Amino acid sequence: MKILGLDSSGLAAGVAVVEDGVLLAEYITDYKKTHSQTLLPMLDELRSMIELDLNTLDAIAVASGPGSFTGLRIGSATAKGLGLALKKPLVEVPTLEGLAYNLWGTDRLVCPLMDARRNQVYTAAYEFIPRGEGYDMETVIPQAPMDIVCILDALNETGREVIFLGDGVPVYIDVIRRNMKTGYSLAVAGQNRQRAACIAALGAVYYSRGRVVSAAAHRPEYLRKSQAERNE
Amino acid sequence: MKILGLDSSGLAAGVAVVEDGVLLAEYITDYKKTHSQTLLPMLDELRSMIELDLNTLDAIAVASGPGSFTGLRIGSATAKGLGLALKKPLVEVPTLEGLAYNLWGTDRLVCPLMDARRNQVYTAAYEFIPRGEGYDMETVIPQAPMDIVCILDALNETGREVIFLGDGVPVYIDVIRRNMKTGYSLAVAGQNRQRAACIAALGAVYYSRGRVVSAAAHRPEYLRKSQAERNE
Repeated sequence: MKILGLDSSGLAAGVAVVEDGVLLAEYITDYKKTHSQTLLPMLDELRSMIELDLNTLDAIAVASGPGSFTGLRIGSATAKGLGLALKKPLVEVPTLEGLAYNLWGTDRLVCPLMDARRNQVYTAAYEFIPRGEGYDMETVIPQAPMDIVCILDALNETGREVIFLGDGVPVYIDVIRRNMKTGYSLAVAGQNRQRAACIAALGAVYYSRGRVVSAAAHRPEYLRKSQAERNE
Repeated sequence: MKILGLDSSGLAAGVAVVEDGVLLAEYITDYKKTHSQTLLPMLDELRSMIELDLNTLDAIAVASGPGSFTGLRIGSATAKGLGLALKKPLVEVPTLEGLAYNLWGTDRLVCPLMDARRNQVYTAAYEFIPRGEGYDMETVIPQAPMDIVCILDALNETGREVIFLGDGVPVYIDVIRRNMKTGYSLAVAGQNRQRAACIAALGAVYYSRGRVVSAAAHRPEYLRKSQAERNE
């Protein structure tokens, strides 16, 4: 099974290909360029380097939101275009699940924090439950836009140790330090931002469970209204 | 602090740049091309994409072995060349430590297995000890070339749960299943092979502790003699 993963939900963007439990290639950047300048060039570069025939893909997994509105649209449009042209299904991987998957194998709660401005974060909490020779990621607190203090209170109530990651961590680090009553840690570079490899790997899991949509049916999940819509 | 990470110790090869706790870019491939065809082109591609001025690097971290003899020589030669030309220090990151760093944040033992042929693996075991807002990786079983059954026995004696990763896992999966008496799991795609981001991130930790060498002084650590030397 060969899955292409695309993530342009935040400042970081990337492409990756996973085949039968191994990452064949990944190219990710976290840079000020817009994703319209990076996503397709990265895919084309990677495709050429590993001589990938896109027709051999089984599905295209995309970080389906939440995230930057423009970033999500670029990722979704790219995935839909590829899916339509190649006649391949899409797998929608919620951005926060992809982020949390960086910490696969931990016994702590994993709390991704994506900065949503105005003291809010897109957030959730997950845990890894042993299953066979691996772990299944399960939802402990469902994804939502939340006040940063509210999610920290909810985490404190669990009494469990927490690992934080995402671009919301540097933004709200002082609030985290003031409010966390249970043990916590901050994920390190290479594991603390969106990775296309996580989208592809989790996409492979969901694909094997039949969680696919057609390219035509796919829509990103913004979780809240855009600035323009709020101003209406 | 800005660190370039290079890894060409195994079939997977990659380049990555970490700055102040964030991965700026990573490009990794796990493909049949030789690393002399991939490592410098990947670096050049990544450098151009994020407009990286190599003179702004603080150090060059390289996967220093064990691994494929040819792969290690290509990685070391590249790192030495860059270090000499740019007048930057090198940070030697043992390949097995870089591999284990994929599982940062787990409470289980982490056991990287690199296939070394003839029923042997390059292996070690590590654990993550809480320290401040993170975890320090500590050695539980020091790196060595070992018979696969010997390392499994040593792991069983700890009585702890283990996460295996590396290209030795698919090779010795039947031996693992037959011999493991404690709980174990197999790391997933994206976390189960060498990553240049892990070399760069761990390189940043070691750089901050002063663990640097000059480009002239650096030598890869093969851990055992090459086939040609054994045949002498």
